[in-house]
Amino acid sequence: MNAVLNTVLQARAALVERLGQDAVLTDPADQARYCRDWHGDVASGTVAVIRPRSTEDVSKAMRACAELGLAVVPQGGNTGLVLGGIPDQPDHQVIISLERMNRVRRIDEDDFSAVVEAGCIVANIKEAVDAHGMLFPLGFGAEGSAQIGGSVGTNAGGINVLRYGMTRELVLGLEVVLPDGSIWDGLTTLRKDNRGISLRQLFIGAEGTLGIVTAVALKLLPRPTQVETALLGVASLHDAIALYRRARRDCCDLMTAFEFMPPEAFMLAIEAQPDLKMPIAGDYPAYVLMEVSGSGLVDIKTLLDQFLENVLEDGMVQDGVVAASRAQGINLWRFREGMNEGQAMRGVHLRTDVSVSLSTMAEFVERTLFVLKQAFPDSLSIAYGHVGDGNAHINVLPPASADIAERQRILYVGKNLINELVYEYQGSISAEHGIGRLKRPEFEQKLAPAHKALLVAIRKAIDPEGRMNPGCQVLAD
Amino acid sequence: MNAVLNTVLQARAALVERLGQDAVLTDPADQARYCRDWHGDVASGTVAVIRPRSTEDVSKAMRACAELGLAVVPQGGNTGLVLGGIPDQPDHQVIISLERMNRVRRIDEDDFSAVVEAGCIVANIKEAVDAHGMLFPLGFGAEGSAQIGGSVGTNAGGINVLRYGMTRELVLGLEVVLPDGSIWDGLTTLRKDNRGISLRQLFIGAEGTLGIVTAVALKLLPRPTQVETALLGVASLHDAIALYRRARRDCCDLMTAFEFMPPEAFMLAIEAQPDLKMPIAGDYPAYVLMEVSGSGLVDIKTLLDQFLENVLEDGMVQDGVVAASRAQGINLWRFREGMNEGQAMRGVHLRTDVSVSLSTMAEFVERTLFVLKQAFPDSLSIAYGHVGDGNAHINVLPPASADIAERQRILYVGKNLINELVYEYQGSISAEHGIGRLKRPEFEQKLAPAHKALLVAIRKAIDPEGRMNPGCQVLAD
Repeated sequence: MNAVLNTVLQARAALVERLGQDAVLTDPADQARYCRDWHGDVASGTVAVIRPRSTEDVSKAMRACAELGLAVVPQGGNTGLVLGGIPDQPDHQVIISLERMNRVRRIDEDDFSAVVEAGCIVANIKEAVDAHGMLFPLGFGAEGSAQIGGSVGTNAGGINVLRYGMTRELVLGLEVVLPDGSIWDGLTTLRKDNRGISLRQLFIGAEGTLGIVTAVALKLLPRPTQVETALLGVASLHDAIALYRRARRDCCDLMTAFEFMPPEAFMLAIEAQPDLKMPIAGDYPAYVLMEVSGSGLVDIKTLLDQFLENVLEDGMVQDGVVAASRAQGINLWRFREGMNEGQAMRGVHLRTDVSVSLSTMAEFVERTLFVLKQAFPDSLSIAYGHVGDGNAHINVLPPASADIAERQRILYVGKNLINELVYEYQGSISAEHGIGRLKRPEFEQKLAPAHKALLVAIRKAIDPEGRMNPGCQVLAD
Repeated sequence: MNAVLNTVLQARAALVERLGQDAVLTDPADQARYCRDWHGDVASGTVAVIRPRSTEDVSKAMRACAELGLAVVPQGGNTGLVLGGIPDQPDHQVIISLERMNRVRRIDEDDFSAVVEAGCIVANIKEAVDAHGMLFPLGFGAEGSAQIGGSVGTNAGGINVLRYGMTRELVLGLEVVLPDGSIWDGLTTLRKDNRGISLRQLFIGAEGTLGIVTAVALKLLPRPTQVETALLGVASLHDAIALYRRARRDCCDLMTAFEFMPPEAFMLAIEAQPDLKMPIAGDYPAYVLMEVSGSGLVDIKTLLDQFLENVLEDGMVQDGVVAASRAQGINLWRFREGMNEGQAMRGVHLRTDVSVSLSTMAEFVERTLFVLKQAFPDSLSIAYGHVGDGNAHINVLPPASADIAERQRILYVGKNLINELVYEYQGSISAEHGIGRLKRPEFEQKLAPAHKALLVAIRKAIDPEGRMNPGCQVLAD
């Protein structure tokens, strides 16, 4: 038996001894699903998967790992897209999965707030507060599996950010187990609290590098009672953005989503879900999926109808269809989700998540697609995303005939081409997915010295032994 | 000449030598206005007031102070209410005033953003973006003097927080000069940017303890074209809060302000502005000043009229007046501002700024006022504030006959009585004003060890020599 294996086995035994058999998965077969990423691109291993049932359990697990000299990789629903929750040193890293901490601790509709444990699945939270007449507006494709702790760690975005903000804007308080096992109780639901530096802001988006989020206090809103959805055909992304600006003014703060899609989106969606029927007659160069919603005395239907009448008349929109029912509206959203599934079915491909300012978005996307078309004439390069946030997903789908080597080449070259343009436009190489392990090299490559010094100083201050999710976000020199 | 004075004079000379005569105020007469707080309760002194004209100047000033072993107190419009910008060690601390850095660098309506220097006055920013058809929604009494850098440092709140959030929610990016004089350029206007920990969050609300904010990228919104204001008489604070909950749902995301005022507010306002006429016939136990606004196709007037008709019919409101014009609306707001002036005219008095959850706000305020009435039967104790944020200002105005000793006793005893109740309700002793130097003792007294350890660790990590605004927020042990 070699030394590493011996050490791993000893560590497993020691963890079981300290935390109990029930809390620790030591069999690699049981561990496998925690060690694979969402897309199945990467498979790793781990010393152990610890599954605490309480904040106290997490604290104990952290102390045990510290004593045993093990690093910790916190994991939520494992739907992350940048390998933030997957060990890169399987013999030294323990996964702490929050999946058993899934209680809704409190829903207080009088306070427009809820307190939930980190392992609660986002869709379950939405359902639970809906039963109280409330809305928790975080919405993204993986919400049926993603846990709120992971959403906080990655500051998840999604399709409703233009109205409700990123996860950051929806978090009122946090409970966090720190690297030394102590518990920071910041679980307030106060709307205004200016008692010094806001510590919770540090943990939001830190991808588990500063501590483990164990519970979250969430901002709730009144549940919308009127939701209107429209699919619109427009002449270009440029027109889509002009339309967004007008909608931002004309529909005031009642617009909930404004998604841009290329014509190929429908083909991809139908490849994944063959029962889908094209909702709009005729082909258009670009499409917008728009949603307006509200509660109470506002008249959302009249608002959207009036808006569409005006913009059709002004030629900003070429054609459009408004969902006649909520079911039809949900059906329109199936194209948006189906497009992602269709891409996954095309095999290994390049996915990106970039943002630029809204003033330069059309130019940036058009230039990027042109460059990609030149570089990969046989691939399908598409751009779609959240117009209101300046956030585009620009992806390259290699032809079916491409072998894995060719696909890897396209991934590598394509990513660099896109990043170069992102830098030119002073954009972000990660708008909503985070840095994790996947994007760390690109992130560090362009990090200004003052920025890096601050990141490293903060990390060392809170985790002096470097035990929290090493390999994620930024490395100390 | 004693040693301290000698050192101070030497430091002044050294600063002038390094930074030039134009940049440094060394005469105590010229320094005086920077060393007094907004209410005139405290007067201090300083080694020098440095007034840089550029980010480079700030960087140079920071390096000079470091070389000379001087501490730095950043100062904006000096409208803070907790002595965050007033030196507590006049012989060792230099004020860096940002007042000369007052350029609007860019307004980009296509990006819904602006970039301004830290010394820009908030009201001037609002005016500048208004000319571009945009809204910068930060709004509070001192906005005509307060600078945006100070608003960022204190995470200023105000009257529109329920719709637009605190300053934090309005900041897209920052430029900061760090304690070692290096410049951190985080001046992006990106809506979504998940490249690791969000450093700007650290500086927002840090009250200049981690660096000096030199420029700010701001989120803009479409300028509202319809604004409706109403003053409503209700039976109690309890009813006012119930009304808020209903308005939150019925007026959806179009409510801009919902202020609670006691009957005495009108008396105080008229004491300060004798030309004010009571806008509502009859006396009511409590009042609500409510504003709904929007742009584009929403019909704000119909919305507010319909809402008021319903709540009058349901008995939630006893009487109300809707401003017939924007001028009348502004006039209603004069009572809200005049009430503050009226309090100031009553001489030294207790002012607080506390928050609790919305579910417990009515009970908390009623209990607190009861306790204050028992303790100070001859004083006028009033509560008013931002209902939607759970934020109340509970103040005690001693009788005219009270001498300064008696006033100081009321301040001391009253503050402790209020704080005890705030702690019982798990509220905040500083909802929107910050900690500064004034609230540091109370803040530190109740600081949980894990919380304090984090604050101290971060401060030491970023400012290892403890040179940034020492005495403010929290002391290292």
